[in-house]
Amino acid sequence: MDFADVVRNRRSVRDYDPLKKVTDAQLKELFELVKYSPSSYNLQSWEFVVVRDPENRKRLKKLANDQQHVEDASAVIIVLGSTNPAKHADDIAADRMRIGLMDAAKKKRFDAVIKNLSADINSCRLWTMRSTSLAAMTLMLAAKSMGLATCPIESFDAARVKKEFAVPEDYEVVLLITMGYETKKQPPRPKRYDYSEMAHLEKYGKPFKS
Amino acid sequence: MDFADVVRNRRSVRDYDPLKKVTDAQLKELFELVKYSPSSYNLQSWEFVVVRDPENRKRLKKLANDQQHVEDASAVIIVLGSTNPAKHADDIAADRMRIGLMDAAKKKRFDAVIKNLSADINSCRLWTMRSTSLAAMTLMLAAKSMGLATCPIESFDAARVKKEFAVPEDYEVVLLITMGYETKKQPPRPKRYDYSEMAHLEKYGKPFKS
Repeated sequence: MDFADVVRNRRSVRDYDPLKKVTDAQLKELFELVKYSPSSYNLQSWEFVVVRDPENRKRLKKLANDQQHVEDASAVIIVLGSTNPAKHADDIAADRMRIGLMDAAKKKRFDAVIKNLSADINSCRLWTMRSTSLAAMTLMLAAKSMGLATCPIESFDAARVKKEFAVPEDYEVVLLITMGYETKKQPPRPKRYDYSEMAHLEKYGKPFKS
Repeated sequence: MDFADVVRNRRSVRDYDPLKKVTDAQLKELFELVKYSPSSYNLQSWEFVVVRDPENRKRLKKLANDQQHVEDASAVIIVLGSTNPAKHADDIAADRMRIGLMDAAKKKRFDAVIKNLSADINSCRLWTMRSTSLAAMTLMLAAKSMGLATCPIESFDAARVKKEFAVPEDYEVVLLITMGYETKKQPPRPKRYDYSEMAHLEKYGKPFKS
């Protein structure tokens, strides 16, 4: 599917066909695209819990303000961001040294960055929110390119989601994303601000016009 | 360009051709795709400062650990996230009521959500980091689909970037993104964790295998 069509036609969908399932093969194809998202030092903060079991989706719906599409979707993806920047650090540093992207001096700086970032949980939360959200956008677009609709949800009881789905302490629940096949024509698209309203040239406040 | 090819071929590029410029028409096309990124209640937290002037790129380089590609890129995008959820709230609520997505009861809930979120700056920072990063990923992929290379930078002196580029207090500098035409073959791609290493089935710790 053409890239621009994917972006223009992706909508946040809340009406799913309960009979059309998202398969293991589709999920594999999806995550094999998501993995190419960029992250600082390639630390790859993201992980995902795929919830397809109907009883689990019902439980999850209760933790997400009873939004019906959580129960109706074929799958719900719990998007998790690690708040531990050191998690993959040794593995990633070894990989970077192996392919020549890191020498001893860069390794020293890398270790200092990881140590410094890890010292402050608020910084770690902001770090993982940014990094993991990049992967979440790749996921929603990739799903659309495969014919699957999605809807991101950012209002939920994160503490209970973690407890009920066995998520370790050092993860942030970044988003829930419902996924499946849409059943009906989407309503009109809500207003989007265009480039002249969101882009500035050289400094803030100087509108960009072309 | 095919969606999966865009995702698979996007790399974080640090070597740019100084002679090939990113034009106004390209930037307009780019932001007209970025605007379709999703956001909770369609609040669209993102704004962008496009820095193409060579002197401004030199100033920005100094605020980004002297990373040379900031100076060499044709354009650097300062990705800004509003930390004021109320900024577009009235406008967006009116739009939603106009197209039938919001009634009086939903409007009341919306107002309460905005008020509650706005009361805590830390929540606002996490909110904008997530929402704005979704748009940043769309931007990097859209650029690739147009033949433009990018590189995200998350280490910079945010306070000075805001001061030197006239950014109001109630914005977060989410990322810098360098942009231009790559000059050489990219080095080997660093290791990515595959689906079996990042996806879990039904609950955390139960590996997903297909």
